[in-house]
Amino acid sequence: MHVDRMIQDNIEPSAIAARLGREHVADIVEFLNGKSVEEATEVIAHMPLPWGIEVLDQPLFRNACEVIEALPEDKAAAFLEGMSSDRAADVLRWIEEPKKSALREGLTPEARAAIDHLLTYPENSAGALMTTEFVSVPSDWTVRQTLDHIREVERSRETVYAIYVLDPASRRLTNVVTLRRLISGEPDAGILTVAQPYAPITAAPNASREEVARIISKYDLLAVPVVDTTGHVLGIATVDDVIDAMITEQTEDVQRMGGMEAIDAPYLDIGFFQMIKKRAGWLCVLFLSEMLTTSAMQVFSDELEKAIVLALFIPLVMSSGGNSGSQATSLIIRALALQEVRLRDWWKVAVRELPTGIVLGAILGVIGIIRIAVWQEAGIFDYGEYWKLLSVTIGVALIGIVTFGSLAGSLLPFALKRLGFDPATSSAPFIATLVDVTGIVIYFSVAWLFLHGTIL
Amino acid sequence: MHVDRMIQDNIEPSAIAARLGREHVADIVEFLNGKSVEEATEVIAHMPLPWGIEVLDQPLFRNACEVIEALPEDKAAAFLEGMSSDRAADVLRWIEEPKKSALREGLTPEARAAIDHLLTYPENSAGALMTTEFVSVPSDWTVRQTLDHIREVERSRETVYAIYVLDPASRRLTNVVTLRRLISGEPDAGILTVAQPYAPITAAPNASREEVARIISKYDLLAVPVVDTTGHVLGIATVDDVIDAMITEQTEDVQRMGGMEAIDAPYLDIGFFQMIKKRAGWLCVLFLSEMLTTSAMQVFSDELEKAIVLALFIPLVMSSGGNSGSQATSLIIRALALQEVRLRDWWKVAVRELPTGIVLGAILGVIGIIRIAVWQEAGIFDYGEYWKLLSVTIGVALIGIVTFGSLAGSLLPFALKRLGFDPATSSAPFIATLVDVTGIVIYFSVAWLFLHGTIL
Repeated sequence: MHVDRMIQDNIEPSAIAARLGREHVADIVEFLNGKSVEEATEVIAHMPLPWGIEVLDQPLFRNACEVIEALPEDKAAAFLEGMSSDRAADVLRWIEEPKKSALREGLTPEARAAIDHLLTYPENSAGALMTTEFVSVPSDWTVRQTLDHIREVERSRETVYAIYVLDPASRRLTNVVTLRRLISGEPDAGILTVAQPYAPITAAPNASREEVARIISKYDLLAVPVVDTTGHVLGIATVDDVIDAMITEQTEDVQRMGGMEAIDAPYLDIGFFQMIKKRAGWLCVLFLSEMLTTSAMQVFSDELEKAIVLALFIPLVMSSGGNSGSQATSLIIRALALQEVRLRDWWKVAVRELPTGIVLGAILGVIGIIRIAVWQEAGIFDYGEYWKLLSVTIGVALIGIVTFGSLAGSLLPFALKRLGFDPATSSAPFIATLVDVTGIVIYFSVAWLFLHGTIL
Repeated sequence: MHVDRMIQDNIEPSAIAARLGREHVADIVEFLNGKSVEEATEVIAHMPLPWGIEVLDQPLFRNACEVIEALPEDKAAAFLEGMSSDRAADVLRWIEEPKKSALREGLTPEARAAIDHLLTYPENSAGALMTTEFVSVPSDWTVRQTLDHIREVERSRETVYAIYVLDPASRRLTNVVTLRRLISGEPDAGILTVAQPYAPITAAPNASREEVARIISKYDLLAVPVVDTTGHVLGIATVDDVIDAMITEQTEDVQRMGGMEAIDAPYLDIGFFQMIKKRAGWLCVLFLSEMLTTSAMQVFSDELEKAIVLALFIPLVMSSGGNSGSQATSLIIRALALQEVRLRDWWKVAVRELPTGIVLGAILGVIGIIRIAVWQEAGIFDYGEYWKLLSVTIGVALIGIVTFGSLAGSLLPFALKRLGFDPATSSAPFIATLVDVTGIVIYFSVAWLFLHGTIL
């Protein structure tokens, strides 16, 4: 983008702002995301108010909070006033006192009330995700009245593609009309002639954003109304909010499965020490738990001394348990997220994983036995006089460890969910650690069983 | 759902079909997904044609292929004819010859041509994802003409919320008009008076579905036109297709990160042997690679014999390398997917991961040294005369292994992507295996350096 040169050449921010006006807002956002907070604030301050509002309204614009904080208070309040209330609430949520109260004071009573209301919902809930700028009409209006109303309010609504029809007396949600059906309706017919034939699909304000995403995707909606227990519409969650939420969710899931705290900024933008902080925490927790492997091995150090050959297979046997455990965990994490299985199905999963683990363990066991036999017979390595018993030990230990890994891996997400945690949260690295420690105990127990009296 | 009872009680499928007519299509789909192919086919065969088409049109209906195959050919062709062409192509893609050709023969020439065209695009590309049922008008039409046209074709189009404006002579895409702006326009004004002020955002037919999702999410679109190199619109990819694609993608990513082939059906629906097949493959590949740990340890078996105490820390040191590697890998997988970093940025990542790995390794190293000192001094375990040198060995080995894990983990996704693979494909389990084997070599090398002449 040529504006890059302009910043380098110290061109006035007002000139840059003017140049940016010709770009799509998403491209402006991408450009500003690459700049410092100071530069972005300068440029936005010099934009005409409606452009600046549009930029700040984009969830993908990363420094919205910082820019609002850095702007003069009257200007910041004007931007917040113009932004959609869900986005304004998102921004205010992260601004600290006393700045937050000062900014709230600058808003009109209506905007302040709308934002305050959104701030009462927990982060990532349907209530926090929703916008209060939607179109609703009483059910005794005609198609023409509704269309005229939409033309009037179109610019101030996040979406007009779904129109919410309310009971004129109670103002409860009774029907939903899509804009595409509305424009096909007879102008003088009642609005209900073009309404959808089934009851409105709704979400509760405390539903999670995954739940909202599931509803929107299942029913192919462009927006879902968030309705309280009395049947009144509090707001709507739109498909673009849901897509943004899904992308964030996916990133967090992958990072948590990788065994670290989710980071909320692009890789190259995160500071060095913040990166260390996000990664060191879990790494230390896992390291401290893995110390149990050392403790377990200390218990078996006499056996190890007698049969040093057992040590050779520890990494192999341990990692197989970890691998089977992370397979099972990732399967169940997704099955739970997609509601393919529910909490009460845990025993169905256990009943499946038990034979699956045994078969998978047996397959690896056979490969392990063949490997030892081939190396021994071909003279590549000498596993000693009792190599046949040793190979059986490895085979049986693999069955035990892979079965334990599959079972524990599939049940841990249920346990985490039952305890109120997100099952994706470090299930994978946790299960590897759990299986590592248990694996050593299983391995040495099997070894004692088969090798006692020979090399042990 | 009461219809469940009806099936148990052997009520006529036609009665069930009639009862289902009152439900939302997404709920019918959910109900039929829980039934066998035979039951679903029976019920769909008894539905009025438009309902059946609506059910088969839902991407979430799992047995569409099987039901189409099981239906009488004339009925199946009538359903395919009525379905949106992108969905019909998706279904035909998986039906085998000679059935596939027979079904194609039953279609009208127009439907056949549309479907054949879609079948030429690779699976999961924008071309395969798109529908050809969209609204386009010449740029010399008025707002009124366009609205009248939309009212006429509304029922046969997947979306009418974006209207594509074509040059009247060349039929190239020149502008996009949203329905919300269109209804606010002056009826007799030209369509271009309500067009978006910037060039249309488009996707190429060979763009991946992730790329399409990225465009739709970045620009907050309800649909993106798929345009060939000459500027002609081939079709449009809609936001609901993209959401479905994103959910599938996310499931596949999580499963692949868990070290298994992606499964394309819910956990409880997959057959036992198919489950084994999906999991055993990768498990065996990883097992065979992990055998290198045994080979590596065999090389150091003399050292191990002399200093059995070294074996106690192998699982701890190895798993720390694996954990740091999977952190780095999951970070870079997402950064690449979100295009936060590009292939050419690999060295920037390497330059960051090197000091990050050293610091993280040092943190774990210090904890490890303290652990050994405390156990030794408290008399919990005797690590021998040279326990101080041993603890330094563990500390230095951790720095080396965690640094190697972070570097290798962050660079493997680049390598996979460069070679044309999806970076999410088993990066995490692969890196664990790679780091395990290298970790043993690093560990024994460090041990030799520090303990040579004492216990080695």
